[in-house]
Amino acid sequence: MITTNTLLASFLRTRSDTEEICAPLQIEDYVIQPIVYVSPPKWHMGHTTWFFEEFILSKYVKGYKRFHPEYAFVFNSYYESIGKRVMRTNRGNLSRPTVQEVYEYRDHITSCMKTFLEEDLDTDIIKLVLIGIHHEKQHQELLLTDIKFILGTNPLFPKYNDTFTENFVQSKISGYTKIKKGLYSVGYIGNQFCYDNELGAHDVFLQEYSISNKLVTNKEYLEFIEDGGYKNSMFWHAEAWDWILNNGVEAPLYWHKVDEQFWQYTFQGLKPLDTSAQVNHISYYEAFAFAQWKGERLPTEFEWEVAQSFFDWGTRWEWTESAYAPYPNYKKAIGALGEYNGKFMVNQKVLRGGSVATAANHTRPTYRNFFHPELRWQFTGIRLVKEN
Amino acid sequence: MITTNTLLASFLRTRSDTEEICAPLQIEDYVIQPIVYVSPPKWHMGHTTWFFEEFILSKYVKGYKRFHPEYAFVFNSYYESIGKRVMRTNRGNLSRPTVQEVYEYRDHITSCMKTFLEEDLDTDIIKLVLIGIHHEKQHQELLLTDIKFILGTNPLFPKYNDTFTENFVQSKISGYTKIKKGLYSVGYIGNQFCYDNELGAHDVFLQEYSISNKLVTNKEYLEFIEDGGYKNSMFWHAEAWDWILNNGVEAPLYWHKVDEQFWQYTFQGLKPLDTSAQVNHISYYEAFAFAQWKGERLPTEFEWEVAQSFFDWGTRWEWTESAYAPYPNYKKAIGALGEYNGKFMVNQKVLRGGSVATAANHTRPTYRNFFHPELRWQFTGIRLVKEN
Amino acid sequence: MITTNTLLASFLRTRSDTEEICAPLQIEDYVIQPIVYVSPPKWHMGHTTWFFEEFILSKYVKGYKRFHPEYAFVFNSYYESIGKRVMRTNRGNLSRPTVQEVYEYRDHITSCMKTFLEEDLDTDIIKLVLIGIHHEKQHQELLLTDIKFILGTNPLFPKYNDTFTENFVQSKISGYTKIKKGLYSVGYIGNQFCYDNELGAHDVFLQEYSISNKLVTNKEYLEFIEDGGYKNSMFWHAEAWDWILNNGVEAPLYWHKVDEQFWQYTFQGLKPLDTSAQVNHISYYEAFAFAQWKGERLPTEFEWEVAQSFFDWGTRWEWTESAYAPYPNYKKAIGALGEYNGKFMVNQKVLRGGSVATAANHTRPTYRNFFHPELRWQFTGIRLVKEN
Amino acid sequence: MITTNTLLASFLRTRSDTEEICAPLQIEDYVIQPIVYVSPPKWHMGHTTWFFEEFILSKYVKGYKRFHPEYAFVFNSYYESIGKRVMRTNRGNLSRPTVQEVYEYRDHITSCMKTFLEEDLDTDIIKLVLIGIHHEKQHQELLLTDIKFILGTNPLFPKYNDTFTENFVQSKISGYTKIKKGLYSVGYIGNQFCYDNELGAHDVFLQEYSISNKLVTNKEYLEFIEDGGYKNSMFWHAEAWDWILNNGVEAPLYWHKVDEQFWQYTFQGLKPLDTSAQVNHISYYEAFAFAQWKGERLPTEFEWEVAQSFFDWGTRWEWTESAYAPYPNYKKAIGALGEYNGKFMVNQKVLRGGSVATAANHTRPTYRNFFHPELRWQFTGIRLVKEN
Repeated sequence: MITTNTLLASFLRTRSDTEEICAPLQIEDYVIQPIVYVSPPKWHMGHTTWFFEEFILSKYVKGYKRFHPEYAFVFNSYYESIGKRVMRTNRGNLSRPTVQEVYEYRDHITSCMKTFLEEDLDTDIIKLVLIGIHHEKQHQELLLTDIKFILGTNPLFPKYNDTFTENFVQSKISGYTKIKKGLYSVGYIGNQFCYDNELGAHDVFLQEYSISNKLVTNKEYLEFIEDGGYKNSMFWHAEAWDWILNNGVEAPLYWHKVDEQFWQYTFQGLKPLDTSAQVNHISYYEAFAFAQWKGERLPTEFEWEVAQSFFDWGTRWEWTESAYAPYPNYKKAIGALGEYNGKFMVNQKVLRGGSVATAANHTRPTYRNFFHPELRWQFTGIRLVKEN
Repeated sequence: MITTNTLLASFLRTRSDTEEICAPLQIEDYVIQPIVYVSPPKWHMGHTTWFFEEFILSKYVKGYKRFHPEYAFVFNSYYESIGKRVMRTNRGNLSRPTVQEVYEYRDHITSCMKTFLEEDLDTDIIKLVLIGIHHEKQHQELLLTDIKFILGTNPLFPKYNDTFTENFVQSKISGYTKIKKGLYSVGYIGNQFCYDNELGAHDVFLQEYSISNKLVTNKEYLEFIEDGGYKNSMFWHAEAWDWILNNGVEAPLYWHKVDEQFWQYTFQGLKPLDTSAQVNHISYYEAFAFAQWKGERLPTEFEWEVAQSFFDWGTRWEWTESAYAPYPNYKKAIGALGEYNGKFMVNQKVLRGGSVATAANHTRPTYRNFFHPELRWQFTGIRLVKEN
Repeated sequence: MITTNTLLASFLRTRSDTEEICAPLQIEDYVIQPIVYVSPPKWHMGHTTWFFEEFILSKYVKGYKRFHPEYAFVFNSYYESIGKRVMRTNRGNLSRPTVQEVYEYRDHITSCMKTFLEEDLDTDIIKLVLIGIHHEKQHQELLLTDIKFILGTNPLFPKYNDTFTENFVQSKISGYTKIKKGLYSVGYIGNQFCYDNELGAHDVFLQEYSISNKLVTNKEYLEFIEDGGYKNSMFWHAEAWDWILNNGVEAPLYWHKVDEQFWQYTFQGLKPLDTSAQVNHISYYEAFAFAQWKGERLPTEFEWEVAQSFFDWGTRWEWTESAYAPYPNYKKAIGALGEYNGKFMVNQKVLRGGSVATAANHTRPTYRNFFHPELRWQFTGIRLVKEN
Repeated sequence: MITTNTLLASFLRTRSDTEEICAPLQIEDYVIQPIVYVSPPKWHMGHTTWFFEEFILSKYVKGYKRFHPEYAFVFNSYYESIGKRVMRTNRGNLSRPTVQEVYEYRDHITSCMKTFLEEDLDTDIIKLVLIGIHHEKQHQELLLTDIKFILGTNPLFPKYNDTFTENFVQSKISGYTKIKKGLYSVGYIGNQFCYDNELGAHDVFLQEYSISNKLVTNKEYLEFIEDGGYKNSMFWHAEAWDWILNNGVEAPLYWHKVDEQFWQYTFQGLKPLDTSAQVNHISYYEAFAFAQWKGERLPTEFEWEVAQSFFDWGTRWEWTESAYAPYPNYKKAIGALGEYNGKFMVNQKVLRGGSVATAANHTRPTYRNFFHPELRWQFTGIRLVKEN
């Protein structure tokens, strides 16, 4: 198990990383919620702070007095068992607490936690703190993607900063890796931190398959568009087709066609489309349709996990064909933290890998990310599989 | 392969079965669509007829002249590649063609098909006819459940007939059947009719589990209700909980509380709840919540298929934990019939078994039925699994 | 006051007129509700019947036993003070009672009323019966317009009958009639039947204006369309423009452009547009925009009433610029019948005149019809006014 | 006509008044749009600035270069003829331009206008500038009511400042003033600024009526509530009743029941209800229902205008029974400014008077304010009329 020193360092580093992500923002950027899935940055900052106050300080620090009586109401996300909360759709309707007040709240809780973490702690509490740290790391990724949405859908297309790189060069190894039919073990084994949804390592039997060593590029995706991919219902799921028609979707999120050329919003503002880069910000629906057009398919999450050591990954979440469901013997935690993962296990698709926005040391080969199939504001891409 | 004689007999029997299902209806009952998922019975009668006209007669009968130039528009369901169609939400807005005209259409097509089936047919055409027959059998089940909804949500609670029995006595064998960890084969093997989604038989590796020999009864489900099952968010998926709150759900479909007693609409009208009967007309959300409350879980579709020979089934579709997804090497058919199954493989749950409304010889151990997790108008029930 | 004999004759004639309107229908046509404002014909037949049962028989016939305990629930329209009712949006979801049962209900109530009307009646009761008769006459017009919508939006465009004429030749007198500035009396004076909203005759002061002797024709309206009338926001109210954009409106209801020519659905089916006929089935929004384009305006309801003796009217309801509001000293009736008119006096526009669908002896110069400004399924047209 | 000096002073004063209204705000308060009718304060500041840039500087200053090429898109409100604009529903989704940038834009335009106004100007241009000034005064009122909504619906109930008084003592004169039947003149006559919708002064004939010298108080309104006013459909318009049921309305906006006592949000935060104050923040629906309950009615806008010299007014907009419609001979302005008033003349009710939030010298006896009947975030109250 982790030492107290390491835990404290990890905690403090995580707290300051969050603040660093927000450093380039204007106060106004912290406040808005342009779509329901994109939370205001100040809400993320308050919510990750409230998590430590709610689940640790108010439970384990004798005589702890809450920073503000209404903040539990304002910053609770979805924990039904904790009490009332601001509806998710209303997060962007709150101008108060101000950004400065949220920073004061953060500082206060960080300081209380620091004092708390300098003492000897039970294993159970250490586990809770680790969950709080990883919870905040998850919100770091959401912060980045929410910030990108807030800036990238603004008609002024402001840049975030000059340095955040979204695209990396893929390794030189092209082609497909063949995996033989057989029994393989999946799920987390080890004694580091992981989420409950990765536990229950177990064997699965896979048929033979070949998985691409590379992610699909913008160039390949452009060919799909130019071949009428968004106009042929045969490539799409029935509800994807409704989504296309209802929303007038014609390209990935953040693509803009200007004078017959595609441009792409990035953290550095609007740029000509980089055709050599991996395609990004696509829904599961689009990933699936692209694969249909190509005559291939998406991997299942287990096919991905079994093959992942053969290719580079981590710059782009990869849609899988697997629905998000419990592993055998899945047990959710007791109490409010049991709401962390289990209650989302319907109508979502698993993504594997990680992205340029994923916090350091946050992902791993067994990590199961999940989103609804129509969502695109995460850094999401495509890896193909073909049967032999 | 099936003989021509058998095929013709099967075709004619299927056609007359559909008409027999509708025999107790008043003309008015054929016309309405109280919710989007419930189609007007006359639409089912026309659509199953159009299927034979569209995919067989107009393709393989030389000089075939369509019965009516607009019927393809009126009776196409969701085949995007065939051309325009009446929006699903508008089926109940059409008073014409009249019921009598639809019967004339049926008779005409049945007669043309009869002539056609009396000749020698290619294997490919026989397969198409079989699909048409099984397509109509599927609609027979929908007809029955749609009729139940049309009558059962009417404030006069009219009965359908005196004879249709919804509840059967379960076999005496109670308890659970233990299935050992190991490699099992799933999927259809054989040379009878099956759907493309069952093909690609393959091995799966299962952990040890114990599956109930009985379906959950109304008595058990009442205990869940009385224990506050519909009022405790901890048993429910997040989106199930929204569904509960938005729709005020407090009991299975067709249950009515009158003077503190539950009554249940059946094909014979409103009746006191039969507590010994299997619970019925519940959504996946409710099946899952019940299992959570019980401390058990739903089977996956493979756990169900592997164990199915050990228990009685067929009177109630059984929700599984499995999302509806393609089997390895799944290939959808070329052309419009490729829209039959594949394009629904997202955001739906697999149900296994069959129901009192399922047509004779229509289901089998490998049959994969599928519906959205909130739907309840099918005859759906619960079988539990426990880990050991 | 009306004699008993005349009252009975009027009652019986009204009842049989309703049935005559429905005579050309198929049973299926009686059942559907394609948009919320269009009620199923069988609902109209039951509702007008229920009105006599609810407000007369059950109140004034000793020991009267209702025909069916649930019909008050099924056939109440909007009388909140009477008790629960089927939501307006759900009228088309009821296959039962059947059309035949509704006719049996009608016959029963007509017969009971006949017996009742053969006796001596108080003035108050006679007034109630007159309201019931005129209420049914109003529903006769709705029946015709609802039937036109049910048939006219069906892709098969079935005809209603061969004889119902929608267009009449306008009198030869063209040009405008000038009305001088001055004090004029408006509102009903007399001792025949009228609605409470016409009472309180009073003086109004009008500025000088000139009112057209003719209604706008399809030819004139076509010029508006061809001049880009539906594409120039400057002619339209702000919310009209939203309505245009959200609904893709490009022409009056029932107009269909086929090979660059307009066709129009009529009670005799689809016909080439009759350019000499009065324009019909337009919303207030369209009437207003046409007047803006023409550089003229719509009359107020008082301008219309004061001038009406100078021109022909009665074949087409005429939109006025007046909002539907109470006259000075307006008093609504006590009890449920007080809900007849007053509670609709907001967000609706007054129409004056009458239409080809208006029942005989039902309209008069002071009659105030009213509809929401976006509705078009009534027989509605345009008469222009210009200032001098 | 106004002198240049006075015009400049008025312009500068108006500009600084707007900024003074916003002085107590935090940056975060400038950004959000909690309901569609409430615009972000920074949008108001930019929009009133854009108005001068669009209609004056860019038209009449030779070689004028716009401050920012995208601001016309961002800050246009509803002028369809000017070009594309941010949808009203999206104003709260824009974090950029920042508040500081908006202030820089204001300063720049104010400065350009100052230079421009120091020269000799044509009468037409002076009229345009006056419209711009009064346009900004209208937005000052909206700013105050929008700020109240932004703060008053925040769970922390922050105060705006310590000094803004919402309630004034009404004069001592109680009772009703009787106005005799007769011909009266209404509409604006004079040579000061007024809006086009007040022009066309004309005679109207009024019946005798008595109008209250006082506005209805919170005490009287509480009696209505306690007498079940919100629970009896007979007091309400049909669509008002739907509004009550769909929104769970039980009291005026900003009232909160805590331990059986009503509190009211004010600019100084949450305060116990002041029963002696005038009732405030009610919809037309509520004003009408209150009058029904009281057995009286609302005045028409002409009854109000004719009687207004007999009572105090100006602290609370007063709902009238009149729909917002054009006066005889109403002519809207040519070009985009013609969109100012005319296109809203449907489905809105006229309010007369003024409120504590109305800018100095902005209202007058002939001023016609207008809002949809369900809106409550303005300072709106009730004055009753009774027939004699």
